[in-house]
Amino acid sequence: MPAVAGIRLAAAAAGIRYGGRTDLMLAICEPGTSLAGTLTRSACASAPVEWCRDRLGQGVARALLVNSGNANAFTGRRGELSCAAMAGAAARHVGCRIDEVMLASTGVIGEPLDPAPVLATLEALARDAAPDGWDQAARAIMTTDTFPKYATRGATIDGVPVRLNAIAKGSGMIAPDMATMLAFVFTDANIAPGALQHWLARSVRASFNAVTVDGDTSTSDTVLAFATGRAPHRRVVDAADRRLAAFRRAGDELLLELAHMIVRDGEGATKFVTIHVNGARSARSARRIGLSIANSPLVKTAIAGEDANWGRVVMAVGKAGEPASRDRLAIWFGPTRVALDGEVDPDYAESGVAAYMKGAEIEITVDVGVGRGRDTVWTCDLTGRYIAINADYRS
Amino acid sequence: MPAVAGIRLAAAAAGIRYGGRTDLMLAICEPGTSLAGTLTRSACASAPVEWCRDRLGQGVARALLVNSGNANAFTGRRGELSCAAMAGAAARHVGCRIDEVMLASTGVIGEPLDPAPVLATLEALARDAAPDGWDQAARAIMTTDTFPKYATRGATIDGVPVRLNAIAKGSGMIAPDMATMLAFVFTDANIAPGALQHWLARSVRASFNAVTVDGDTSTSDTVLAFATGRAPHRRVVDAADRRLAAFRRAGDELLLELAHMIVRDGEGATKFVTIHVNGARSARSARRIGLSIANSPLVKTAIAGEDANWGRVVMAVGKAGEPASRDRLAIWFGPTRVALDGEVDPDYAESGVAAYMKGAEIEITVDVGVGRGRDTVWTCDLTGRYIAINADYRS
Repeated sequence: MPAVAGIRLAAAAAGIRYGGRTDLMLAICEPGTSLAGTLTRSACASAPVEWCRDRLGQGVARALLVNSGNANAFTGRRGELSCAAMAGAAARHVGCRIDEVMLASTGVIGEPLDPAPVLATLEALARDAAPDGWDQAARAIMTTDTFPKYATRGATIDGVPVRLNAIAKGSGMIAPDMATMLAFVFTDANIAPGALQHWLARSVRASFNAVTVDGDTSTSDTVLAFATGRAPHRRVVDAADRRLAAFRRAGDELLLELAHMIVRDGEGATKFVTIHVNGARSARSARRIGLSIANSPLVKTAIAGEDANWGRVVMAVGKAGEPASRDRLAIWFGPTRVALDGEVDPDYAESGVAAYMKGAEIEITVDVGVGRGRDTVWTCDLTGRYIAINADYRS
Repeated sequence: MPAVAGIRLAAAAAGIRYGGRTDLMLAICEPGTSLAGTLTRSACASAPVEWCRDRLGQGVARALLVNSGNANAFTGRRGELSCAAMAGAAARHVGCRIDEVMLASTGVIGEPLDPAPVLATLEALARDAAPDGWDQAARAIMTTDTFPKYATRGATIDGVPVRLNAIAKGSGMIAPDMATMLAFVFTDANIAPGALQHWLARSVRASFNAVTVDGDTSTSDTVLAFATGRAPHRRVVDAADRRLAAFRRAGDELLLELAHMIVRDGEGATKFVTIHVNGARSARSARRIGLSIANSPLVKTAIAGEDANWGRVVMAVGKAGEPASRDRLAIWFGPTRVALDGEVDPDYAESGVAAYMKGAEIEITVDVGVGRGRDTVWTCDLTGRYIAINADYRS
């Protein structure tokens, strides 16, 4: 990963829960860094989520401190105090205000997060932070992830090259215990907080909010963006500014790449599944139908079994609670149309599709026949390994 | 099962899909039988569901014809013609109007249902129908069910004894391929269609609509009630008539018993799980929170793993999209309170609950701390066996 001007990172093994691996990362941003973020809608959000929610409005940040091993969720007043202690210590070592420190935690729910090991590690972290710490940082926030997740893109604003780096974690989307979805974007672009927030919210909708592994939503899901403004172009203040077009495209690609990594690393996943929904009443309706298919245990187990079981797709369309025409419904597996006008396609030969289903990348397209709304979502199959991972987790 | 005055049943092996087992049942009701029903809300409902929907309003029925092996769903115009052919033949052999024949089908989706084997079997079915055909009828409608499901209750109306019998099938709730939920209630009580419908709709809400195996909704779910009126009491016309109280209680118990059988027979299930939600904004809100817990793959796999993973219960409460107080939330596994006021209970000892989790009946109670709404739902655990059943199903 290339450097991003104005960002330094470090990771360490603080011993929060795991032995023999890193579990704490610190990113330090130069003064004047714009902040944007989207947070879980869970009614039982974690303490660090509430910490960030209370501070997103200020639009600036100087540091990001993330730990794995303990989610600091459902920890009551003690959880808030842990946040304050950790952010306070980070502020002291970074040299900023406590409110300029953003926090995220991922790991076990309901166990108090003792800040002591974090506090003991922060001085070294702040000292060691360097522009090349990306791989270490991505590894430190992993839980059940099987590989570190990071990606980079370049773009130009006013002809000036800017860089976007991002790291993420998550492998159940979204499993609460140790598989929360976290993602952090860093750029040297000079973008005001409002414009950054506008881009981020739309981009998350089309990336992280369009993937699902198991339909479960974490108490800790967090996406934050940091723009240091070190790139020497005139500041972008208006979200509709055309100079932002290339940045937005690059940023959208970046987030989508990370979102796809999370699905590919889905717990027990053996197949990457793309679901296109066309012909819906609206894009929003298409999204709901897509997620109904993507979250159906019966669709997901059929894919695991390499069975082009389009009857289950019909079922999932039907249960979505959205307008759909039974008599105009059409379904494709890959290039093969299997159903048309509410019946099995007369030309459909199951043998061709059977070979397609053995692949690792499955595409399902549905036209629900009532309008022009469309959307795409991504998921993975549901295997016995998902059950094994999640049934045996804490023991 | 005792007889119900005015009802005769028979079953036969028509060879629709399965070999060596029965797959077709006919119930014949005496003239004047009141009809009530609730049907799937799927936007892609099967042809027999639409057949019944178009005829429920008439409030009377003379026959019920149900097949397993083929759901006659997503079969377009041909599906409607199959319905007409089957109902027409049944009407001829029973001696009633075609619109007095109710239909239900369960099995594979998207394959045309050839009515020929049904038509060839109907004459014998009508001839053999007898008051004691309950066990046979319950077996003929099974798909992935591992045992036939029937139950009976007695009640009195105006001091006159009445009988309620019911049969059901379903073992994924609600899996579309071969595990649709069907239930049929038969009584000799003399109840007008409107009053019967009023009771049935409320009773289904608290029974079949309060259980879930996998959150998937079939294209074919059907509950029908038939009241022959043979019992010698004065006819009940008004749903609010107090004379109906004992009948309602008995009927509610009957439907709940069958709904629980479906959960116990859930695909791959090893544990029967009761989820009580208290302290919600309303009963409706409590239902949504309960189903969010009951449908969470992470909660269900934790129960399969005999892990009292209350953090996942917190997650499921949080994602339900309903009002809940993170700081007043309390959770019990069986008699043990594990969480209180948004934190782990200080008196909680995991060892005691670990023993409880090894049992076959698990009770989870949640108080979400915002109101007085309450509800109960039932589910089963999610095991590797569910995956095996559904990944390997059609092959």
